[in-house]
Amino acid sequence: MTAVVLDINLSLDGGIAAEGGRPGRPLGDGGDRLRAWATGPDADRAPRPAGTAGALVCGRRTYDTSPEWGAGGPHPPTPVFVVTHAPPADPVLDGVYTFITGGIEPAFAQARAAAGRRDVRIMGGAAIGRQFLAAGLVDELVVHLVPVLLGAGRRMFDDTDAGPVDLELVEVVDTPVATHLRYRLP
Amino acid sequence: MTAVVLDINLSLDGGIAAEGGRPGRPLGDGGDRLRAWATGPDADRAPRPAGTAGALVCGRRTYDTSPEWGAGGPHPPTPVFVVTHAPPADPVLDGVYTFITGGIEPAFAQARAAAGRRDVRIMGGAAIGRQFLAAGLVDELVVHLVPVLLGAGRRMFDDTDAGPVDLELVEVVDTPVATHLRYRLP
Repeated sequence: MTAVVLDINLSLDGGIAAEGGRPGRPLGDGGDRLRAWATGPDADRAPRPAGTAGALVCGRRTYDTSPEWGAGGPHPPTPVFVVTHAPPADPVLDGVYTFITGGIEPAFAQARAAAGRRDVRIMGGAAIGRQFLAAGLVDELVVHLVPVLLGAGRRMFDDTDAGPVDLELVEVVDTPVATHLRYRLP
Repeated sequence: MTAVVLDINLSLDGGIAAEGGRPGRPLGDGGDRLRAWATGPDADRAPRPAGTAGALVCGRRTYDTSPEWGAGGPHPPTPVFVVTHAPPADPVLDGVYTFITGGIEPAFAQARAAAGRRDVRIMGGAAIGRQFLAAGLVDELVVHLVPVLLGAGRRMFDDTDAGPVDLELVEVVDTPVATHLRYRLP
């Protein structure tokens, strides 16, 4: 059955990217350490690897800074649904990207349809991830906890009015470059 | 050799306490889940347990809300150095607490002297912990990562001007109620 997985590279101090994100350097200056695990020898041990996803959802910033996500990129060619208020005037037209202007609900519906029996993977953009969490659309949270204190940068979690949400920890994969944690949401 | 250990109960979204902290309920309303591991069957498996410390350092809020830290409390009777601008008018006088008004440096010096060959354990107060980190006084970071999204509350880490600090992950203890992570600082 399809699972909706929110996938996060997280520094120990709660960051998802350093300052200075730009095309070709989506994680900012010094932020590549947050995904160094993904090109290391233990990458395949991480839960819910990218190849298990049938569709990806991300925000506009991720699209703008991660052009390599399209066909020919490191991920298997997978439909990517980009949630944005304003589609780019000159989008990459390689059959991978679809731009969704109506918010996360239509993005979710289209991603789920495209994924078939495979996972929908929410990745790229703290705001998008928080919106999916707040809407109760996330089944699993996969955190790649990286042993670094970023100090400054973009943070995953903000204060919300929601009360505590208890998670069930279902998998821990311990590697030197990241502690991979898989949680099930209620 | 003495290690200076910063010990943190941390929610997955970076919180160290829920809203509503007060005497007898230091972790706020619903925040007790952040230390539920400490009274569970696996508590002794956590790295650097409380009994290994020869001295504790905390902030004034922790003193005010955690009266049970003194003699007769859950921790072995251990000297506690409370960093505060204003010592309480009516302090607990059980031989445990010392109030330090000169900031973290004298607190650190006195705690290290009191600890002898045992650990100095920094616990209680995000601000105190951040000051110790910023001053480069922390040897190890022990994080008890609790599977909950607190939503709101007091956060451990703020943005700082410091660049990324890479940590060395030296121990992971995986339990259902908390993932215990021990990191060495450079």
